[in-house]
Amino acid sequence: MIREIVTILIFVLIAAGGAFAQSDAVTAARKFREQNEIQLIERYLAFLSLPNVASDTANIKRNAEHIRAELEKRGLSPRLLTLDDPKVPPAVYGEHPVPGATRTIVFYAHYDGQPTDPADWTVTAPWKPQLMTAAAEKGGRPEELPSNGPVDPNWRIYGRSASDDKAGVFTILAAFDALKAAGIEPAVNMKFYFEGEEEAGSSNLRSVLEKYKDLLKADAWIICDGPVHQSGKKLVSFGVRGVTSAALTVYGANRDLHSGHYGNWSPNPGMRLVKLLSSMKDSDGRVLIEGWYDDVEPLGELEKQAIEDAPKYDEQLKRELGLAGTDGGGRELLDLLNEPSLNINGMKVGDVGELARNVIPSKAEAVLGLRLVKGNDHRRQLEKLRKHIVRQGFYVIDRDPTAEERLKHPLIAKFIAEDTGYNAQRTAMDLPISLAVVAAVGRARGEQPVTLPTMGGSLPLSIITETLGDPALITVPIANYDNNQHAADENIRIGNLWDGIEIYACLMTMD
Amino acid sequence: MIREIVTILIFVLIAAGGAFAQSDAVTAARKFREQNEIQLIERYLAFLSLPNVASDTANIKRNAEHIRAELEKRGLSPRLLTLDDPKVPPAVYGEHPVPGATRTIVFYAHYDGQPTDPADWTVTAPWKPQLMTAAAEKGGRPEELPSNGPVDPNWRIYGRSASDDKAGVFTILAAFDALKAAGIEPAVNMKFYFEGEEEAGSSNLRSVLEKYKDLLKADAWIICDGPVHQSGKKLVSFGVRGVTSAALTVYGANRDLHSGHYGNWSPNPGMRLVKLLSSMKDSDGRVLIEGWYDDVEPLGELEKQAIEDAPKYDEQLKRELGLAGTDGGGRELLDLLNEPSLNINGMKVGDVGELARNVIPSKAEAVLGLRLVKGNDHRRQLEKLRKHIVRQGFYVIDRDPTAEERLKHPLIAKFIAEDTGYNAQRTAMDLPISLAVVAAVGRARGEQPVTLPTMGGSLPLSIITETLGDPALITVPIANYDNNQHAADENIRIGNLWDGIEIYACLMTMD
Repeated sequence: MIREIVTILIFVLIAAGGAFAQSDAVTAARKFREQNEIQLIERYLAFLSLPNVASDTANIKRNAEHIRAELEKRGLSPRLLTLDDPKVPPAVYGEHPVPGATRTIVFYAHYDGQPTDPADWTVTAPWKPQLMTAAAEKGGRPEELPSNGPVDPNWRIYGRSASDDKAGVFTILAAFDALKAAGIEPAVNMKFYFEGEEEAGSSNLRSVLEKYKDLLKADAWIICDGPVHQSGKKLVSFGVRGVTSAALTVYGANRDLHSGHYGNWSPNPGMRLVKLLSSMKDSDGRVLIEGWYDDVEPLGELEKQAIEDAPKYDEQLKRELGLAGTDGGGRELLDLLNEPSLNINGMKVGDVGELARNVIPSKAEAVLGLRLVKGNDHRRQLEKLRKHIVRQGFYVIDRDPTAEERLKHPLIAKFIAEDTGYNAQRTAMDLPISLAVVAAVGRARGEQPVTLPTMGGSLPLSIITETLGDPALITVPIANYDNNQHAADENIRIGNLWDGIEIYACLMTMD
Repeated sequence: MIREIVTILIFVLIAAGGAFAQSDAVTAARKFREQNEIQLIERYLAFLSLPNVASDTANIKRNAEHIRAELEKRGLSPRLLTLDDPKVPPAVYGEHPVPGATRTIVFYAHYDGQPTDPADWTVTAPWKPQLMTAAAEKGGRPEELPSNGPVDPNWRIYGRSASDDKAGVFTILAAFDALKAAGIEPAVNMKFYFEGEEEAGSSNLRSVLEKYKDLLKADAWIICDGPVHQSGKKLVSFGVRGVTSAALTVYGANRDLHSGHYGNWSPNPGMRLVKLLSSMKDSDGRVLIEGWYDDVEPLGELEKQAIEDAPKYDEQLKRELGLAGTDGGGRELLDLLNEPSLNINGMKVGDVGELARNVIPSKAEAVLGLRLVKGNDHRRQLEKLRKHIVRQGFYVIDRDPTAEERLKHPLIAKFIAEDTGYNAQRTAMDLPISLAVVAAVGRARGEQPVTLPTMGGSLPLSIITETLGDPALITVPIANYDNNQHAADENIRIGNLWDGIEIYACLMTMD
């Protein structure tokens, strides 16, 4: 019943409300893009050439300055939102007041990217963006930017943050330009917030929001981040998973030992680590840690329905990813995303390949990534993990063991809980603003988008609701799903940028 | 009974036979060393400055040439024993015929060292040898070489191969020099064999020995490699373990995936790897692979007795290594060394530390090291391991999977068996030459050495017995046991070099 009402409401909104201004917006966005394709790509390539790992302070400031200058050019009254610590990447703020608008909306994207090992990249170096005629794994070949458009929308741009998430910054500004070029005034009071440390866990977001609380008053935030649906359909998401992590070190002897002279006798910390990690999940990927799934807040009727209505694409995805089987006992991906996860992000024991040696390494390291859903608390979830390690017989500390501790405890684990994790966030799918956003995206594309109660990925949205009086937070991603986000060879499909400009032009002009 | 006879025989040999020439040899060696300490250390530091990883062809040739020149200076008729492939490190051969000698003995050491990551070294770079006043972990501090001796014998030299095994090359040549300086003619017909790829698994040793079989005819080989007993007592070892390895890769999706968008659904190859490795050993370090201990040839009465007579040092070793517990259910190290072992040499999944990312890695890698004892065959032992992986449900191949295979098999493992492994070797402890060597070492040090049926470490001695008509092979190591062999911060205690010169002078003059 709820489902029917919502569908009707959305349909009515697509068919009628604000339709005139918004179809103007689509036309304006398309025309602007068609007339400026080459310059838009050129400008984006320059932006992608700036290295943007949050811990690389000098370069991250170059990015912030670049964005600040772009806002300045457009008369958007930019400010760098900073804290006292000069190592904290500044957020770039801007605004475009629209007198008489009934809604104030913050358009959000982040300009920092995931750290990466350049050696893993095969198409180009992370910050030397490269045009390709298709995805590399589908036979794409490198291509120069032509001097005249149009460019095939299936071409891709490879480079760090090409999709995650400089695409968001680029798209929001290009949509604004398109409206301006057509002389269309946005229908919402606009603010801009471009974050510079999302991939570093948004460690300082809370402090920045608290400091600039008054400046950031708004009814809603629209988040341009993440990929669209795997079916290629556009997506509106009403929540994100929380995220945190823990670094784990398990110890053997106090120095690396010759595996011949001590093998069979001196314990191998790698073997201890694999036994410990192995105890955390069953062979089906189900987490075995006590209470792992206990706090999960169940989905409502509307949320369940949205998942059920979403296109079925698991089989296609398995084919694309080369997977003969999946975790979760045959349950669907979209269903499983509503549960907390535990992932081995990385593991290192001694060396493999050329540097492999016949040693019993002195330590074994792992980084575990946790995703959280509504109901979980990031500190509580880490504590469940820590307690599990204790239950496996380990003496658990948060630093290297002393010589005395080594002689006292056969099993020792260093457990460093991330202190910058954050919780999941979910906005109700039946708020007026929620319905308006879905309608606007639907109108931009001429079809109902996929709607989801949560994305699998994480954004620090709970920090926004906790500090800014609970604005609605709605994510409207634009990147292709096969974008290698967070990995080497990250890329964006150019057509997705173009669609994004049209969608955001509609969002800026929605009633 | 056997034990008593052997003890008496050795005692008689120590007390009487050849005692005159040999105590002359000790005196000569000591005098030579005392008069030349600084020059000896200087010469050794220069030798250690030559990078010596077997795969570094240009540098390994510089080492071979250096040794060849040293043999040349001494009139030892050097030859580089090579194969057609220029990438095979040459063995350096030399000889000193002694007319009328009843025994021909090959003195063996290897001049190549284990690969290493310079970033792991804390005292000095691997090939920038550094004098230290003690072991670094015991408060040693860097020191320049003084212009006059004597140098404190507890000082150490840090650098790759300082103990393993350029110390062998250095010691053998210095012992020869000492005898020459004192005008003492060796009692045995001497040959020298300095190998250049022992740490790379002696891949070409068999071919080289076969090619130069006639040149290398001998009654026995005396191997200068490995550490002395952990008690500090000198050691004579009559066997070595065999060694081989396997590289293992387990697969997830065909590319790294965002852990948020796919976590809970796309299998984590790290988790698959830890479950697989975890199935291979129990929590006590006992290998659970079917038939792992089946082929082991039991020790004889004399061998068991030697182990029983060896000093008890497990408790001291545990204290030194910071171990509250050991594998093997409380059995002693020397006992456990007579069983085949399985060691996690290295493991790599994604990254840890600064480069850690929120991804589901696409693959997980491990290198497993196997040690073998008499009775094991290296290929058969690897096959047991491979079959175990098959029994865990994996589709096992020796290359990356095709796209088709990925879609067919949920669990896929790439298993690359080392093709250059070799078997264990054991020489009978009651041969006349065995008794003579023990007696010579005993006389050099004034006390009965520890004798062991096998060392924990590996040398390709089975290749020598298989190709050269079964000469006796006896290992007389000189390095301190806490030498960080195969690891970063490898070092040698200078006093161990000096003892080594006296021991080898005695071996060269034994009846």
